[in-house]
Amino acid sequence: MNIKTIDYKKGKLKIIDQRQLPHKLVYISLSSIDDIKKAIRTLAVRGAPAIGVAAAYGLYIGICNLNLKEKKIFFRRLDKLIKYIKTARPTAVNLSWALERIRKTAYKNKKKSIATIEQLLFNEAKKIQGEDEIMCERIGRFGARLIKDKDRILTHCNAGALATAGIGTALSAIYTAKRQSKRIKVYADETRPLLQGARLTAWELLKSGIDVTLICDNMAASLMEKGEIDKIMVGADRITANGDFANKIGTYNLATLAKAHRIPFYVLAPGSSFDFNIKSGKEIPIEERAPDEVRKIKGNYVAPKNIKVYNPAFDVTPNRLVTAFVTEKGIFRKPYRKSLKGLKS
Amino acid sequence: MNIKTIDYKKGKLKIIDQRQLPHKLVYISLSSIDDIKKAIRTLAVRGAPAIGVAAAYGLYIGICNLNLKEKKIFFRRLDKLIKYIKTARPTAVNLSWALERIRKTAYKNKKKSIATIEQLLFNEAKKIQGEDEIMCERIGRFGARLIKDKDRILTHCNAGALATAGIGTALSAIYTAKRQSKRIKVYADETRPLLQGARLTAWELLKSGIDVTLICDNMAASLMEKGEIDKIMVGADRITANGDFANKIGTYNLATLAKAHRIPFYVLAPGSSFDFNIKSGKEIPIEERAPDEVRKIKGNYVAPKNIKVYNPAFDVTPNRLVTAFVTEKGIFRKPYRKSLKGLKS
Repeated sequence: MNIKTIDYKKGKLKIIDQRQLPHKLVYISLSSIDDIKKAIRTLAVRGAPAIGVAAAYGLYIGICNLNLKEKKIFFRRLDKLIKYIKTARPTAVNLSWALERIRKTAYKNKKKSIATIEQLLFNEAKKIQGEDEIMCERIGRFGARLIKDKDRILTHCNAGALATAGIGTALSAIYTAKRQSKRIKVYADETRPLLQGARLTAWELLKSGIDVTLICDNMAASLMEKGEIDKIMVGADRITANGDFANKIGTYNLATLAKAHRIPFYVLAPGSSFDFNIKSGKEIPIEERAPDEVRKIKGNYVAPKNIKVYNPAFDVTPNRLVTAFVTEKGIFRKPYRKSLKGLKS
Repeated sequence: MNIKTIDYKKGKLKIIDQRQLPHKLVYISLSSIDDIKKAIRTLAVRGAPAIGVAAAYGLYIGICNLNLKEKKIFFRRLDKLIKYIKTARPTAVNLSWALERIRKTAYKNKKKSIATIEQLLFNEAKKIQGEDEIMCERIGRFGARLIKDKDRILTHCNAGALATAGIGTALSAIYTAKRQSKRIKVYADETRPLLQGARLTAWELLKSGIDVTLICDNMAASLMEKGEIDKIMVGADRITANGDFANKIGTYNLATLAKAHRIPFYVLAPGSSFDFNIKSGKEIPIEERAPDEVRKIKGNYVAPKNIKVYNPAFDVTPNRLVTAFVTEKGIFRKPYRKSLKGLKS
């Protein structure tokens, strides 16, 4: 596994342009806050943990670019930049989580010089990136405990190396199980409308030598009924205090099917994806994206141009459908309102 | 509604080339058995009832083209042609149902001249077409009884005018309810991989002035959970004696979700889609189609070219998930093994 989804190099954020996968592996370097926000909004970089890392570096790059000399203005502009980047995408909580860490670092050191504060912000962004890599490894280790030899695992969207600064969340468990010589077979939902499963998960699992089969989202139930799926592993964009969680549209679909077929349903995500400020999934803001994402595929219309479209980017799965949460701190089971408290820092 | 999906004109089968919808409304004329089989196989014409009509005319055209003078050879070739067309697609029973009607007509009149038999075969094909139109109207009338003012109805694939010689099966109920001035809102699953919902259902509902919203298949559960779906109406490719049925892949997915959300799930199909020769869904042959149907969209790859794919064209929904079957003879409810007997002719 040598996929470097996101990194910082000489004043620039270097990312894989995921819009071009699986056909081309293209790295792009972003040197302005506008470009970084746009990369997040257009899904050039995506996946809750990767968005957090991108936002942290983005904020650092953005504030340095302003070359400010006066402390008061520095803090005013920092707050403004945070507000600006936060609106890139509303659902994944890692975005604001990372930005708040950078803000806190700045305010904690407000007595220091601007140059020193900037250095500390860089260190914090680097730390978030490093923690993310370690988090991936740990989630993988805990997650692999849930995987048995010969398991057939269904996953949705992309919760892999391309969604993080490390080796992924849900896919980290699969990579780790593979390293442990467990023979596994993965089914990847293509994940309409933006086909992250077909484009990204298929690509990175193939590249990693994992036995992977692509299906359309609507084929999952048929596989479950045939007894072809042993467990489901997905990531999460925001998990609330009671264990309800938002993830890529279609996740609630899968969780409901898993329940009907008595298949364990696991959610693998870092502590940074938990939002203890909200009590239940009802409070999670769900991003609705442009109709053309559904009407068009690769620039070509596949539906009437004037057809109305409903295009939520995420859905919310209620806690009762989750068999366990896997985080860098371990495996958490019901009742979640109680068990998840252990994750609060 | 003036969509003429399939018709016979001067020795040729005239069909809408559904592969070109929704962008172009193109009619093609097919004058050989090979072309007609190919049109069925490549889904230029599709939908169980329309396939039946196409096969009936196709067989007539095919046998006439041979210009046979000897009765014995005529019957031998007729049987051969039936065998040939039957393999075009394995799941929809209407294909063999229509071919067997033509065969029976021939054998019943085997004492007559070849010219007379050919005329009788034409009459029978024409009769199948006419019956299909009437069947659509009747299903619509019965189906509309299940639709209330302001209902929000979810449908999958295309069970409309484009799937029949008339105004459709599931969509016929919607057209009829609309004529009865019921205000209805339809959600159309795009129906991957071949996007019959996005391309065909969206197109014909828009054309008919129905309020229609397109969704990706994986969004249905989210809408159900929000209370946005009052009922589900789909067609069927083959219904067995116990009420299990095959329909476009993703139908079983929807039926399972409907059950979990306590939403009525209706199957609208003609008597010709019932196969009393098999007892349960386990015996229905399920067509698996080419991997590139999933890997490519409109000629462009959307996944790695060498990715393994599972691509069944249909799934089987067990009888317990069906609220009622609507046919041209009425509305049939559980227990199906008993109630459906009324459909045997």
